[in-house]
Order: sequence, then structure tokens, then C-alpha cells
Amino acid sequence: MSSALWFPTLGLLAWLCCLSLEPVQGEKILVLPVDGSHWLSMKILVKELSRRGHDVLVVVPECSLLMKSSDSYKTEIYKVPYTKDDLDKSINALKDGAFLKPPSITDLFVNVERLVNFTSMQVKGCESLLNNHPLMTRLREEGFDLMLTDPFLPCGSVLAHMFSIPTVHFLRGLPCELERRANQCPAPPSYVPVAFTGNTDTMTFPQRVKNMVVSFMGSYMCKVIYSHFDDLVSRYLGDNMTYKDLLGLADFWLLTQDFVVEWPKPLLPNMAFIGSINCKNASPLPEDLEEFVDDSGDDGFVIFTLGSMVSDMPAEKAKEFFDAFGQIPQRVVWRYTGVPPVDVPKNVKLMKWLPQNDLLAHPKAKAFMTHGGIYGVYEGICNAVPMLMFPLFGDQGDNVHRMVSRGVAEKLNMYDVTAEKVVTALNKIIHDKSYKEKIVKMSAIHLDRPVEPLDLAVFWTEFVIKHKGAKHLRIAAHELNWIQYHSLDVIGFLVIILLTVLFVTFKCCLFCTRKCFRKGTVKKKKE
Amino acid sequence: MSSALWFPTLGLLAWLCCLSLEPVQGEKILVLPVDGSHWLSMKILVKELSRRGHDVLVVVPECSLLMKSSDSYKTEIYKVPYTKDDLDKSINALKDGAFLKPPSITDLFVNVERLVNFTSMQVKGCESLLNNHPLMTRLREEGFDLMLTDPFLPCGSVLAHMFSIPTVHFLRGLPCELERRANQCPAPPSYVPVAFTGNTDTMTFPQRVKNMVVSFMGSYMCKVIYSHFDDLVSRYLGDNMTYKDLLGLADFWLLTQDFVVEWPKPLLPNMAFIGSINCKNASPLPEDLEEFVDDSGDDGFVIFTLGSMVSDMPAEKAKEFFDAFGQIPQRVVWRYTGVPPVDVPKNVKLMKWLPQNDLLAHPKAKAFMTHGGIYGVYEGICNAVPMLMFPLFGDQGDNVHRMVSRGVAEKLNMYDVTAEKVVTALNKIIHDKSYKEKIVKMSAIHLDRPVEPLDLAVFWTEFVIKHKGAKHLRIAAHELNWIQYHSLDVIGFLVIILLTVLFVTFKCCLFCTRKCFRKGTVKKKKE
Repeated sequence: MSSALWFPTLGLLAWLCCLSLEPVQGEKILVLPVDGSHWLSMKILVKELSRRGHDVLVVVPECSLLMKSSDSYKTEIYKVPYTKDDLDKSINALKDGAFLKPPSITDLFVNVERLVNFTSMQVKGCESLLNNHPLMTRLREEGFDLMLTDPFLPCGSVLAHMFSIPTVHFLRGLPCELERRANQCPAPPSYVPVAFTGNTDTMTFPQRVKNMVVSFMGSYMCKVIYSHFDDLVSRYLGDNMTYKDLLGLADFWLLTQDFVVEWPKPLLPNMAFIGSINCKNASPLPEDLEEFVDDSGDDGFVIFTLGSMVSDMPAEKAKEFFDAFGQIPQRVVWRYTGVPPVDVPKNVKLMKWLPQNDLLAHPKAKAFMTHGGIYGVYEGICNAVPMLMFPLFGDQGDNVHRMVSRGVAEKLNMYDVTAEKVVTALNKIIHDKSYKEKIVKMSAIHLDRPVEPLDLAVFWTEFVIKHKGAKHLRIAAHELNWIQYHSLDVIGFLVIILLTVLFVTFKCCLFCTRKCFRKGTVKKKKE
Repeated sequence: MSSALWFPTLGLLAWLCCLSLEPVQGEKILVLPVDGSHWLSMKILVKELSRRGHDVLVVVPECSLLMKSSDSYKTEIYKVPYTKDDLDKSINALKDGAFLKPPSITDLFVNVERLVNFTSMQVKGCESLLNNHPLMTRLREEGFDLMLTDPFLPCGSVLAHMFSIPTVHFLRGLPCELERRANQCPAPPSYVPVAFTGNTDTMTFPQRVKNMVVSFMGSYMCKVIYSHFDDLVSRYLGDNMTYKDLLGLADFWLLTQDFVVEWPKPLLPNMAFIGSINCKNASPLPEDLEEFVDDSGDDGFVIFTLGSMVSDMPAEKAKEFFDAFGQIPQRVVWRYTGVPPVDVPKNVKLMKWLPQNDLLAHPKAKAFMTHGGIYGVYEGICNAVPMLMFPLFGDQGDNVHRMVSRGVAEKLNMYDVTAEKVVTALNKIIHDKSYKEKIVKMSAIHLDRPVEPLDLAVFWTEFVIKHKGAKHLRIAAHELNWIQYHSLDVIGFLVIILLTVLFVTFKCCLFCTRKCFRKGTVKKKKE
């Protein structure tokens, strides 16, 4: 910022006392994150904000999967009415069956039910925070300048509204695209494919019909999925406020999206894309792993991991993979915590945890076998490694569809995977040069950006703090109801005017014609 | 760019040979600018691209208002079938009457007619370039990598299409919002005010009706205004292509807009806002001018200029201003080339040209009297100086409306301006602190941005060169017709399905009822 050059005198600087354009420091930021992979990416921003001198407090439930205390930021632990076991069971139910059973149409309802069960547990956790009066009083008195939260769960937004502090949302997206609906971002269904339809941005007529129907059903799905959130919000904030209304009040949306993954679509001024915020420069590999991949020769190696939540699989599935890996010349680094068979092929290295990004950045990485979690997908793109994808649950199916339709990945179903299918697919993405060429192009486009995602996320977070919101970026559509937004009242009014004009004209013509006709008749009669 | 870290080996670097993420240099850029203030802002980008090592060729008509040769870039002059006098006459007609006559409803048609006359002259100029076969052959053989053009005139886009090179558009906006229509950017008339309606983003019902009607009329206006362009395009490019179709093929749109001036509205991925690209750090003032403004004491001084095109005004108007300035304690720096009266007030300094930005950056600048040209408006915002505005023609009325409705400016009509009105308005914006406070806030928000406008413009220009376009940012709506875009065919289909289902259900019910009824009747009869 060269702002100082614009306002060289003390007189003008006095005006700017509360609007300094210098980087803000020491502001108080309250963070309410969401567990699992959601937290892993938000943590990057939290640490950076802390490093830049902000006073960051992360509020964490006592039972959590991946959220821990850290030297980089302060944490405040709150009690929840469920145990770690309950949490694990709920999470396991979400991914249940993905390995063994083909998907069916009823899965949609089962998945929604499981999601509702999972979120209703989180709502209870949220309530126990909101009812923890000593903690709430302490937090309120801290006088935070900003709430940074992931709206996948409602507590952060509710708290921000109660404390009257600006909110920045950090997320990939929400079920039934609630983030788009809440922020009122237009998405014409004629060219913006709805998630899980399997559509791209270029659709045939039947595909457009499907897109429209699913988009329409989405409104109903939203009501079902977020019913617990709606109850919570209206109970604590009153005014029959829904969760969608509450999210619509957010000041800024940091979205881990990018147009190499998303199809081009309209944006709003209060949205910024920070896809691949999780990509980082490669660190050196541990010595034994470095040796293992370095010695893979011209054939190179394959990375196989199903993400932070799934490190095991049924033995019969694992057998198919071991069989497949025994047939390929590449070495394989596999994150697998299950019981290995006695005859693990020599080219396979099993690990309880693996440095995914560092392995992908290795020049001998030939393919990335992944479940299609969005952060893994971005690491694959940043490092330009073609993918063999096994979607399990959540948004993974949709992420995989995007990569496959762009020609940088192949997809296999986990429920009917065989050694033969794995070998064929791996050979295809490794030996058919088009996969590599396409992902190298995609990677180059993705990495070519005016601001790095982390810097952009920090910029907008600090912007909202400095200017106490970002009102000038918020569309006025939020003040309109559905009929007004779509101008249906205006169209109705104009149609009435038009019809009235037509009617009056018609009546006038009729009157004139009759008069002329009558004159004619009278004349004739006289004659 | 830290791309090298991602691809550390020669093998991978080979893939990247044609996709280098390093700044491109020495690429050949063809520039077809538009004269007047359009050129003054585009020149900043042209000079920067040249400074960064690109081979820039600016194609300029032999008769021009402000475009000249320069050491910073190469120029190619082409013959046109009009003289400098014709050009001046045409420009003068555009601003004719603004000083003396109140605006009326018929002005719209008169202005459209003048605009059409002005552009038809430019079309002739363009044709003489396109028919200049030796020059065209030479340009084609140069093998340019990019066309940078202002689509206010059609020649750049036509040439880019003929030479099959990617295009970057640089503009503020086009009459009847053709740029938005061509790029298919959504703008719901319920909250996106149409230019010249006098609406803001928050509208009453009558205002929304007006917005809708004007938006609808815009489609017709576009056809009238661009009829000469449409003829030219279809004649040279065939396929019944319209100018709107041609503009829709652009790779990227650099718009000199910003959300402190524009009301929040949807954007598309291939648009970037580079408003205030013309603002620059203040340079020292010439010695006599520095002394004049430094000695203005606590009252400070006022800057008065009507832009690059208007430096004179009718004597009776000028008298009102001289009278007004004689009554205020502030000093006045006025760009005025007319004949001054004998008794010019001592606090007034008349200049043939003035360093507007450097004066606005002076701490004693109290008010900026301006016609409301967009580049002057940005200089006012960058330097946080409240404005007294006298819109004359073109988009100035709309710019003024924006500033006035944000409380950082007052407006006076030039046709009925009096000394008294000027004194009252100046006193208001200087002594009512709210004007200064609001523009300081506006300025702080405007200057707080992740990338400076010039850097952003350079980034996207080089992006399009490097990646030979920006297809991943182009919405698929361009492949749809009007019915498909609005999903009218899908809605029609779904309505037919619904009606059929309802009809069949109704018929079934009727059939059953009849059967039951008949049975009942037969039974009764039998009884």
C-alpha cells in the first residue's frame, strides 16, 4: 500500500486514524472451526493470521477428531454432550457401505438422513457452548473484531450475530449449495451444473432438464438438511430467522474453489476463490521414503491414500489392491493401517501416515490414487500428477466427476474394484500422455494467479477487520423477497398495463367500428 | 510465482516449455485504442507493457485528438477519410448545448443520433484500415500474440478475429451496457440499477418498474446504436455476425470500475476491475503553482476543470463562475482557455492545462469542481477530495449521480448555474464535514486492495498471452440461445409433463367416479 503517498500531511492522516491502510496487527479474531479436513485447511489461515500478530482464539469442543491445541494460537475448550465414540460412530455411519455396496437411488435419502443425524449431534454441541454462560460472558467481554468460521456448522455464525461482530466464512461449499443461495449468487441452471447431477457446463436438453429439476429440489433438500440449524437459529436469535438468513449476513466468503475445478459461473463481489490454499512448497521426504521413491527408476511411483478419515478398508478390497500392485512396475506408497497380507509385494511401502504433498511434488510421482477429497485434488493439480480416483462419500463424487470430465483422471468404484481394473486404469493414466499433458496445462493455469491464495485470504480477513465489514460488496438483493428479486411484481404490473392498453384500444376500435357500421346501416335504411 | 519449486526436474520443465509461469517478455501486442480520455487511461497500460519488454504496436488514425507517437511504444499511422475538422465538429456536436439548455426527454434521441453519427465516422475510418491491404498484410505477418483494444470502436475486435489472436478489452463500459450483454453477465434489474435511470441498488416499486423498462429498452437501443458496427462486422467476418456476437468472443475484460463507484452486482470470472488505474503518486507541482496553493492558508483551494475535451465555456457562464470565486475565501485553480474578464478575482489562477492529480493530492485541496468524467472521479476518490460536479454529456451524468447518492459530492446543472448556487454548494461541501468524512472512508476502502489496478491489468494481459486465451473463465452461456439461456424450453417441457400428469390423473379419477356412479345407478335401477 502506498497510501501514505496519497495523504502526505498530518491533517489528512488525522482523518485516517481509524482507517489505517497499513496491515492491521493485534486485532482479536475468534475462530469457530469445523473438524476433520475442514480444519486442516482453515488451520493454515489461522496460523498465518496468528503469525502476522493477530490475537487468535480458536474455540474447540472437548471431543474432536483433528483439532488440537497449538503454540501458534490460543484455544478455548468447551464441554459437549457427546463422547469421542459417539463422534466416531456418526462419522463412520457417513462413510458406511461405500466400500461394499453399489450406490442406488435410495442412497440420496440415506445420506441425507445420516448427514442430518451428524449435524444434529453438532447442534447439541453448539447449544452446550451457547448455554455455557460463564464462557459466553468471557468471550463477549473479550471484544473480538472478527469471527472466522466454517458455516458447515452453525455455532460460529450464531455467536457472531450475538456478539455483533463481522463474519468471514471459510469453506469449500455447503450441502444443497446453501452458501450460494444464502449469498444470493446467481447460477442460471442452463449453464451452471448443479452438484451431483454429473453435468458439465455444456448440457444437452435432457441434462438441462435434470439440472433444473435437481436445482429446484435443492430448495426442499435445504429445508430438510438444515432444519436443526433453523431451529437453533430462531431459538437463539429470534425473529423466525433461518440459517440461510443468518448466513446471508456474512461480510465475506473465502471459498476453496478455483476455475480449473469449477466450471465458469457468476460470482459476487464479496466472494474470493482461495482454492489450493493447502498446497505448499515441497519439504524433503524422510530418509527411508526418499530412498524408496528415488530408487523407483524410470517407472516412477504411485501414491495411494484415501484421506485423513479413511486409512483402512475391508480385507477383500485390500487384497485386490495388493494383487494389482504386484502386477505393475511402479513402486507404491500406500497409507494403510489395516492388517497387511503375508505376501506384500516388494514394490509396496505401507505407511500409517504419508507426506502427501511432498510425495506428489517428487519428480518420479506418476499417479495419485485418491478418494477425491478437495484438498488432495488441489495437491494433485498443484503438482501436476494425473489421478486414479475412488470416490467414497460427501462431495468426493462431484470432485471426481470434475477431474474425470477434464481428462486428468480416471474413476473406479470402490464397491466393485478388482486388481485387473486397477492395473488397466493405472496403465492408462501413466502411459497415455494426454492425462499428463492436460494436468500440466491445468496446473500451469491454476498456479498463474495475481495473488497467492493464502495472501488473498489474509487480505480479505484483514480488510473486514479494518473496515468493520465489507458493506460496499454486499448486493442489495438481500433486502428483497423472492417475488421482488425475480421482478415478478414488476412483470405482473407491466402485463396489466399492457392488457389494459390493449383492452381499451380494442374497445375504442369496436366502438368506432360499431358507430361506422351503425351509420352505414342507418344510411342504407334511409336509402 | 514459485512455480519452479513445484516442478523441480528437467523432465517436468520440458512439459512446461510452452507454459512458462515466469513473466512473459518480448511478446507482440497489437493495440487499437480509442481517442480522447479513453486513450489517456489505456496508455498507462500500454506504456507499462512496453516497459516490461513487450513489443507493443499502437495503430493510430492520422486524424486524432490526443493519440501521438511516443518513445515508449511503436505506432503505425493509417489514413482515414475524414479531417481533423470533421472530427472536432462531430465531438463538438456531442457536447453541444450542455451549457445552455436544460435537458429534455427528447435529448435521449438527439444524443443517440449524435452518437450514431460519431461512430459512423469511426466506422469509415475502420474500413479504410481494413481496406488498406499492404498495411493489413504487414500486420498479419507480424504474428501478434494479443490484441488489446477498447471496444467502444469496432476495429480492434474485427482485426483480432481476422488475425485469430486472443483479445483483451480495456474499457469503462459501453452505451446500453453492451459489454455486459455481450459477455452475458447477469444483472437482475431488481437490484442492479441501469445507467441513466437515476436509480441506486435500493429501489422503490416505481423505480424497479423504471429500471425494468429501461433495461428492456436497452436491447432495442443497442440495435440502433450499433447498427453501423453490425454492418461492418457481418461484411468483414460474414456469418451474419453482430458486434455483440463478436465482443462475446473476447478472452478478458479489463474494466475501469470499482465497487466504491459501482453498486454491488454479479461479475464473471473473465472480468477484472481496474478502476483508478489512472491514479498515480503525486509529483511536485510547478514552482508558481506550488506557491499559489501553499499560500492559500487555512481556507485552502479549489480545483476546477471540465476534463480534457472542454476547456472553454460561453462568456455568460464563465461570468457566473468568476463572480462566485470572487465571493469565496478559497483560492481557485481553473483550467480555462476562454477570454478572461478584466477583473479576474485575485484568488483565481487560470491555466491552459493543470496537473489535476498533483493538485488533488495537495493537503490544502478542499474541493474538486469537475464535469464527472470517470478518470477525474477516480482521482478525486484516490485523493479523498469532495466534489462539486457539473455533468455535461456521455456517462458523466451517471458518474455524478453515483457520487452524489453516496454523499461525497454535490451536483449543479451547467445550463442554469449561477454565482450564488456555486458559492452555496462550495460552502456546503467544504464546511459540512460529512462530505470529507465519507470520501475519506471511500478512499480508504478503494485504496485497500490485494493488487494495484495497473499490476492486475498487466497480470491478466500477460495471462491471456501465456495461455493463449482464458477459456476456463468463459461461461458456457455463449453457446446457448435466448430461450435456452433462460431455460424456457425446459420450463415449457416440465409444464407440459405436469399438465399431462394432471390431465391423466383427472381423467382416471373421472373414469373411476363414473364407473362407481354408473354402478350405483344400475344398482338403484335394479332395486
